[in-house]
Amino acid sequence: MSKGITPKSEDHSKWYTDVITKAELADYGPVKGTMVIKPYGFAIWELVKDEFDRQFKATGHSNAYFPLFIPKSFLAKEADHVEGFAKECAIVTHSRLMTDDDNTIQVDPSSKLEEEIIVRPTSETVIWHMYKKWINSYRDLPILINQWANVVRWEMRTRLFLRTSEFLWQEGHTAHSNKEEAVEETLKILDIYKNVSHKHLAMPVLTGRKTNAEKFAGAVDTYCIEAMMGDKRALQAGTSHYLGQNFAKAFDVKFQTENNNEEYVFASSWGVSTRLIGAIIMVHGDDNGLRLPPAIAPTQVVIVPFFKNDEELAKIKDYIDPHINQLSSMGIRILFDDRAKMSPGFKFNEWELKGAPVRLEIGFKEIENNEVTVFRRDTKQKNSISADTIINHVPTLLEDIQNTMFNQANDFMKANIFTIDSYDEFKRIINEGGFVRCGWDGSDASEQKIKEETKATIRCIPFDENTNNLTCIFTGKPAKHEVIFAKAY
Amino acid sequence: MSKGITPKSEDHSKWYTDVITKAELADYGPVKGTMVIKPYGFAIWELVKDEFDRQFKATGHSNAYFPLFIPKSFLAKEADHVEGFAKECAIVTHSRLMTDDDNTIQVDPSSKLEEEIIVRPTSETVIWHMYKKWINSYRDLPILINQWANVVRWEMRTRLFLRTSEFLWQEGHTAHSNKEEAVEETLKILDIYKNVSHKHLAMPVLTGRKTNAEKFAGAVDTYCIEAMMGDKRALQAGTSHYLGQNFAKAFDVKFQTENNNEEYVFASSWGVSTRLIGAIIMVHGDDNGLRLPPAIAPTQVVIVPFFKNDEELAKIKDYIDPHINQLSSMGIRILFDDRAKMSPGFKFNEWELKGAPVRLEIGFKEIENNEVTVFRRDTKQKNSISADTIINHVPTLLEDIQNTMFNQANDFMKANIFTIDSYDEFKRIINEGGFVRCGWDGSDASEQKIKEETKATIRCIPFDENTNNLTCIFTGKPAKHEVIFAKAY
Repeated sequence: MSKGITPKSEDHSKWYTDVITKAELADYGPVKGTMVIKPYGFAIWELVKDEFDRQFKATGHSNAYFPLFIPKSFLAKEADHVEGFAKECAIVTHSRLMTDDDNTIQVDPSSKLEEEIIVRPTSETVIWHMYKKWINSYRDLPILINQWANVVRWEMRTRLFLRTSEFLWQEGHTAHSNKEEAVEETLKILDIYKNVSHKHLAMPVLTGRKTNAEKFAGAVDTYCIEAMMGDKRALQAGTSHYLGQNFAKAFDVKFQTENNNEEYVFASSWGVSTRLIGAIIMVHGDDNGLRLPPAIAPTQVVIVPFFKNDEELAKIKDYIDPHINQLSSMGIRILFDDRAKMSPGFKFNEWELKGAPVRLEIGFKEIENNEVTVFRRDTKQKNSISADTIINHVPTLLEDIQNTMFNQANDFMKANIFTIDSYDEFKRIINEGGFVRCGWDGSDASEQKIKEETKATIRCIPFDENTNNLTCIFTGKPAKHEVIFAKAY
Repeated sequence: MSKGITPKSEDHSKWYTDVITKAELADYGPVKGTMVIKPYGFAIWELVKDEFDRQFKATGHSNAYFPLFIPKSFLAKEADHVEGFAKECAIVTHSRLMTDDDNTIQVDPSSKLEEEIIVRPTSETVIWHMYKKWINSYRDLPILINQWANVVRWEMRTRLFLRTSEFLWQEGHTAHSNKEEAVEETLKILDIYKNVSHKHLAMPVLTGRKTNAEKFAGAVDTYCIEAMMGDKRALQAGTSHYLGQNFAKAFDVKFQTENNNEEYVFASSWGVSTRLIGAIIMVHGDDNGLRLPPAIAPTQVVIVPFFKNDEELAKIKDYIDPHINQLSSMGIRILFDDRAKMSPGFKFNEWELKGAPVRLEIGFKEIENNEVTVFRRDTKQKNSISADTIINHVPTLLEDIQNTMFNQANDFMKANIFTIDSYDEFKRIINEGGFVRCGWDGSDASEQKIKEETKATIRCIPFDENTNNLTCIFTGKPAKHEVIFAKAY
């Protein structure tokens, strides 16, 4: 166990913060609720971001950038939307500072703005204001735009990566000439979210639709990917919304159809955020720290040499350099940790903490035997391989780690989704930890009551729901939906 | 001349806005001073950004992310710094909206913050607050961090890309154990700025140091790259600051030296922004619109087919597809514009407007002769080449266009830098347009007076200044520096 990390089983929340701090992923900013993403954490985010960006572009989306500042009046134009965000807005009211008589810095009262400005909590309103200018005819559609941006939702109870006043995300905003195309877009994106989660984050997700109570403020339907964390709680990892004509109506965005009629534009919006870093930590981390799936590990392979002086280091370097160069040229992110003042043991701990998937250990024993010692972070297995096979072995090993990590997480999730039929069992499982798959009568009242009594929420109505002979876990009435309940972050 | 673009010679400012609007680079946001970067403009920015990012990483820098929000008190800690930014701050004072009796949305007065928050105009203060936590010993140094972020400096007189309340940029913030290393870093970055400007943006820049009056609020020395726009005015295209120990002292950031002494940390900071897009437009644009250097053109080669129906289009596609695939696989950004409803002439205009460096025209005449017609945007020359040579010709042509555009801009700049020796001549040139290279006595007073009388500012003290026998253009006293004067954006 790495020094200074609280065991996961002892206190999951403290373990989480310890991993973030010790692995130097993030730190707390000076304004309450804000976060600093440190270089190692940001390097992970860049790899996650690049993969999403690649897939968005491959499906015809372009990036753009819309302003941080939104007039207060815009937020009010969509009733549900303002209701959803009013209580967590950063509001800009002045534009100048001044030095007062005591020589302290004060807000200059004469710089008060005519209309207050909201720092975007999400960009639907400012984007649909622009779309009104840009859309006239069916020929202007579809618009498939994404932006990578910071957004602000006021938070007092900070949890790094999961709940902070400011976070980084992507938000896609698309405009279409008909409902079918907008819904198709919404689900296409959900598929990208699921695919990147599975293939790159090695994180299994459930997909489905949100209930009315849980959907996005302003959406017709919200679809989501939900993941199970190591403490068996749920985390909403991404959402894709079919917005219908809600924002088009709020911002009066009509288009001329091919038949010369006028109609309101159909819309989708969708986002994933730096919260995914929190998910990666909690899905894969263990008592030694982070475990990173190779696809998003800034350092996929670290080499730790055993040496006493520069001469020995030089010999090891000669031995391994050709392999490093070849693996690098194959696109593998490999690092030779030649720091002189740290012991191999210190480096082992540090790289396990930072979750590097593969460690190669090389000393004179290895050189004599024409070998390298290979440690894999996922299973903590260690073995020796012939130096002649490194080039073939390492890529295969990385692929195997990627798959193994997905399978570990998937087995864990499957083992902790329970199909039950009594509310007592429901309460026991929610209390002990796990997802419950059961019937729900579809009423806001039951959903609300269950939440009050157990803190469990409906994470999604899964696409493969089956309501045959199913009854509501709470009321016993015929189930309208089969749903997934869990306590969530 | 493209329809709807004001000739450059008639009204440079209107020409500039027309190009941005017609080429769909950007638009005005709803809050005064804000800008929307549209997909085509953002695609250019992504290419510019990627190149800088690549070079920062190659020189050992990591990306990170610091909060948007800065406590008001932080800004006041460095005296020059607050002086420089106080009059252009967006200030957050509240955190909630509420619905009042009239059912309108108001700021909730009970959500007033204890301490007001500043939306970052630049991040020195918040970053040095964090560095205090992270730096203890010489072993923690250097820190070489960059961030890509949005910043806000309140502006009422908007000019798209050049002057907007919010803009996108990168800001590097480094910490070092000694002055020499910090200065070296400052100049290394300036070199990257110059290199990317020359090699990628095809934009010649002058490099040098700023005067005290023009340097960054909080810097010891500011170094800059300055470019000449098409109207012979100067544009500060990037700055790199040696900050000495100013911010370390303001935030009390000391480190333990190798000899167990305590010393304040030395610093640099540096940035380039989306303003570079404005520079690209004004350095290269002409009366037909944008001209993009191939290195940063989202579409380097556009193919315009001549066809009357689907069958003809299919034949042209068959003819050119193998070449498209091969050029794509070589990393060339190539697009086959098969839109059916637009004429070739319309597409010619549009792609000239958007500045695509190379256009290939293909109709049945070309197929018969086994040729393609090649148009290059930089010189507007058109000729035919054998289809068999496309794969060799296109990459060479792109390279030639890149070089030609740099040379065109460089010749223009050189022809418009004047070495003169009377103040009358000075005034004439500044009035007619151009840079003046001349002596300056080094006094704030002369600099200020010249600015008042002519609107010219000292753009930089060039690294290759020569003060031998030089006198001040204004006072006639011995010159302390040889400097570059110009009217600037």
